[in-house]
Amino acid sequence: MATKKRILVLGGGFGGVYAARDLERILRPAEASISLINQENYWVYQPLLPEVISGLIGLTDVVCPIRQLCPRTELVMREVQKINLEQKFVTVSPGFRARQLDIPFDYLVIALGSISNFCGTPGMVEHVRSFRTLADAISLRNHLIHALEEAEIEADPDLRRKLMTFVVAGGGFSGVEVIAEVSDFINKAKDNFPCLRREEPRFVLVHAGERILPEMSDNLALFAQKLLAKRGVELRLKDRLVGATSEKAQFKSGLEIPTKTIVSSVPSSIPPVLQGLSCEKENGRLKVSANLELVGFEGTVWALGDCASIKTLSGRSTPPTAQHATREARTVAKNIAAAIRKQPATPFTFEGLGKLGSLGHYSAVAEILGVRISGFLAWLLWRAIYLLKVPSLRQRARIALDWFFVLLFPPDFVQMRVVRETGIARQHFEAGEVVFFEGDLGDNVYIIESGECDVLRQSGGQETHIATLGPGDFFGEMALINDMSRNATIRAKTTMNVLLVSKCDFDTLKSCVPAFGDVFRKLTKERSAANQKSENSAAAN
Amino acid sequence: MATKKRILVLGGGFGGVYAARDLERILRPAEASISLINQENYWVYQPLLPEVISGLIGLTDVVCPIRQLCPRTELVMREVQKINLEQKFVTVSPGFRARQLDIPFDYLVIALGSISNFCGTPGMVEHVRSFRTLADAISLRNHLIHALEEAEIEADPDLRRKLMTFVVAGGGFSGVEVIAEVSDFINKAKDNFPCLRREEPRFVLVHAGERILPEMSDNLALFAQKLLAKRGVELRLKDRLVGATSEKAQFKSGLEIPTKTIVSSVPSSIPPVLQGLSCEKENGRLKVSANLELVGFEGTVWALGDCASIKTLSGRSTPPTAQHATREARTVAKNIAAAIRKQPATPFTFEGLGKLGSLGHYSAVAEILGVRISGFLAWLLWRAIYLLKVPSLRQRARIALDWFFVLLFPPDFVQMRVVRETGIARQHFEAGEVVFFEGDLGDNVYIIESGECDVLRQSGGQETHIATLGPGDFFGEMALINDMSRNATIRAKTTMNVLLVSKCDFDTLKSCVPAFGDVFRKLTKERSAANQKSENSAAAN
Repeated sequence: MATKKRILVLGGGFGGVYAARDLERILRPAEASISLINQENYWVYQPLLPEVISGLIGLTDVVCPIRQLCPRTELVMREVQKINLEQKFVTVSPGFRARQLDIPFDYLVIALGSISNFCGTPGMVEHVRSFRTLADAISLRNHLIHALEEAEIEADPDLRRKLMTFVVAGGGFSGVEVIAEVSDFINKAKDNFPCLRREEPRFVLVHAGERILPEMSDNLALFAQKLLAKRGVELRLKDRLVGATSEKAQFKSGLEIPTKTIVSSVPSSIPPVLQGLSCEKENGRLKVSANLELVGFEGTVWALGDCASIKTLSGRSTPPTAQHATREARTVAKNIAAAIRKQPATPFTFEGLGKLGSLGHYSAVAEILGVRISGFLAWLLWRAIYLLKVPSLRQRARIALDWFFVLLFPPDFVQMRVVRETGIARQHFEAGEVVFFEGDLGDNVYIIESGECDVLRQSGGQETHIATLGPGDFFGEMALINDMSRNATIRAKTTMNVLLVSKCDFDTLKSCVPAFGDVFRKLTKERSAANQKSENSAAAN
Repeated sequence: MATKKRILVLGGGFGGVYAARDLERILRPAEASISLINQENYWVYQPLLPEVISGLIGLTDVVCPIRQLCPRTELVMREVQKINLEQKFVTVSPGFRARQLDIPFDYLVIALGSISNFCGTPGMVEHVRSFRTLADAISLRNHLIHALEEAEIEADPDLRRKLMTFVVAGGGFSGVEVIAEVSDFINKAKDNFPCLRREEPRFVLVHAGERILPEMSDNLALFAQKLLAKRGVELRLKDRLVGATSEKAQFKSGLEIPTKTIVSSVPSSIPPVLQGLSCEKENGRLKVSANLELVGFEGTVWALGDCASIKTLSGRSTPPTAQHATREARTVAKNIAAAIRKQPATPFTFEGLGKLGSLGHYSAVAEILGVRISGFLAWLLWRAIYLLKVPSLRQRARIALDWFFVLLFPPDFVQMRVVRETGIARQHFEAGEVVFFEGDLGDNVYIIESGECDVLRQSGGQETHIATLGPGDFFGEMALINDMSRNATIRAKTTMNVLLVSKCDFDTLKSCVPAFGDVFRKLTKERSAANQKSENSAAAN
């Protein structure tokens, strides 16, 4: 008898988990061992992820432990750091103890999905949220609640308006579902905030095409557009998000919308660990054969899901949906079994059953086996299909209960801040934007990465220019000494990128790294002297 | 008619929220406005918090939005930064935009609870978890799952044993409930990990007294001890946790237990913002009159809950439990109403109805109105009482559903990492402990705060001493350049405290802060030269 083969699956999305499940089903334990590497120990039921925003589904009910879905698969909860296709091993990231861990394989399945990639567009990395993972969904939910809480106690109407404006970029299924859930949630939750009840929130969906939902037929897309418009969502078609700061979203058309909340569902690329692979690519994704084998590594490596460029028999690219990923997984599992058993491989032939998209609030659009429906019936169908497709009985029961529960009670709006945000963050400012005003409270120190800013002081209704700061300069540190109140206004002179270091981290660094502390102490002394001088001269005037 | 009075409540625990609820009930809207300041927008049902660990209760079902509990109260979701008792205003922390926010009051209720305070015991702040907030509970749950996932793929039996050892300090209600939930959860969840099924986890409960549960009578405490022992929990009585490192727990008796998980429910003190108040204190807590007025500020300021030192009529100190806090809240609300209406105040007279503590796994101990019961009946009583005490109907229904659900399905063990931990962390090492080994992977840079360590290298079975590093020195940065593999072993020479900076943050700082970058580059150059030399001399040997 042949030795037991080692199958290694990379990625725990629909592609990876379903491939492992199908492999468990097809292969006997004596034929092969199966391992799966994923950063999280759970699998996310992506189609229902937007429902987490409004709390329609409990935070943990949209996920399922991978160990329960694939009981015979060894799960390695680490990040994939390097793939060596030639020597057949994968290196993973360190865990509690940082030992080098190489995992060898006989057969490899690559299903690492895609990541958001803002391609260096100014301010996008810092101020635009992506919507891919459970962490993204929870973080967006927390941010929305934070915005409501802040708007409720904010006296400045401009800032209140900014806090109550929500922009989503990308009018595909994902973007449409996100804007629908966000508007549902904000409209319902704001009734709990006495001052916001009269406030009209603003929701904007921006899409590059002539109409939203490019995957759907014209009349369904128009139905969706009308419905969103009726619910107060502004549609900006033939436009694109091209930049963002902490204060606004910037569009290709030149329009700027002041906002504190920008979500983008586009664009995406394959993860960096795959970008470096020495294999053929197509449209930036891994090129595979009709049998889903990685070109150049046939018989050893398969790729599927969002990271692979897969064509159906009719020649169209397969869309990044769950129904395609699960069918690809089945083909991969069959072909690996065929390789082990020295049988012929079978090509991928699935053409898609239909398309479904929720519009929130008891409405959806669907095209199934050629039939087009919209509205409440489509919504019921959407719920029924997705509920039946949940692989674990426990999870299915929980989601059904959650849906039932919402009929009886309003959604809650508890903000789940698990970790206090500390550490070092980045911010991007456009020329003319104010970082902070004189008199504001402050507990951050800013370090300029690039660009310049003006330091200004008000006195007797007049603005005095104190200094211009450039790359490598600090500001904001005076407030940490002088009881937290900013003693000057900082306004960006050019496009400017800054680092934010929290007071707590800054103090730690200052006291532990002598060089860092020295620079800081010198600067503080200079500034204090300069302050003294400028105050004296102001008094003299 | 008198002008409308402003009542300000600080804190959103049992004391604060129930005071606001009672004030809403007693006072007409025209008599007073009520504001409440709390860092979170939700109230936590503390008695059920340990159940979050094992997932008996859904993560968000143990909390309830404060706005829904107190609809007429204005909620300010900020941190209390300063209390000015004389001039009657409270300063709060900055929000989205950092403007100074002072909130004036006519009547003040202080209910800010207590915080964990490890009083500078070495290593405790860094390596011991407290168990007070929802964030603590979720973070402990995630840590337990991480430990299981790591133990499953760990080849070193010592490290595996460390990962599977769980220490809880403090044998009061909170500590007992935590160890019970942790052992329940680990024992159930480990069946999903093929390699851990044969592994015997170790659970240790350490308590300073002669027996656990000092609040209870002898025979109930002994019942609890027997039950825990039967479930495999090691009891260490008359001992105390006195130190901790990332590798072990250190006890007063001299015993050391290698572990990666230490939870402590003791000791506590009042929050720093109250420590600085210029008012009388008693046993480190705010001194109040029989009417719960803050001594020195009678008629204006009231204090209750864990931050106040309150005596019952019989002269005993009130314990920090929900039943006392809610009764104190009622007395405070009545007395504020009396002050507004110029009526006489009433003293606090509640003596306690009884004591209840869950032991997990269908067992509990209870002393109610003089009757002592233990086991399943006490557990049913415990559940029934706490369920009835949940103030919101929605939350009560959800908790009941959660409990029912657990009867049908096993608990899940999804790890909810919402935020990737970045930024700057601290670690504490005792002399002889290894920070990392040569050949380990690394993505952190370490900066020594205090203490010294040896840099060692293995070659041909021999250990060579390369250097000794002291305060302000870096190490670990070579791995960031040389493809992530540590080129030396670092062992603490004395007790040592270090800062951990993630690769990502380190690179950012290096490139943005010239002084920081210069120091680093110089050091790297020196070390590379030294490495070269030592390798040459090794080759020469």
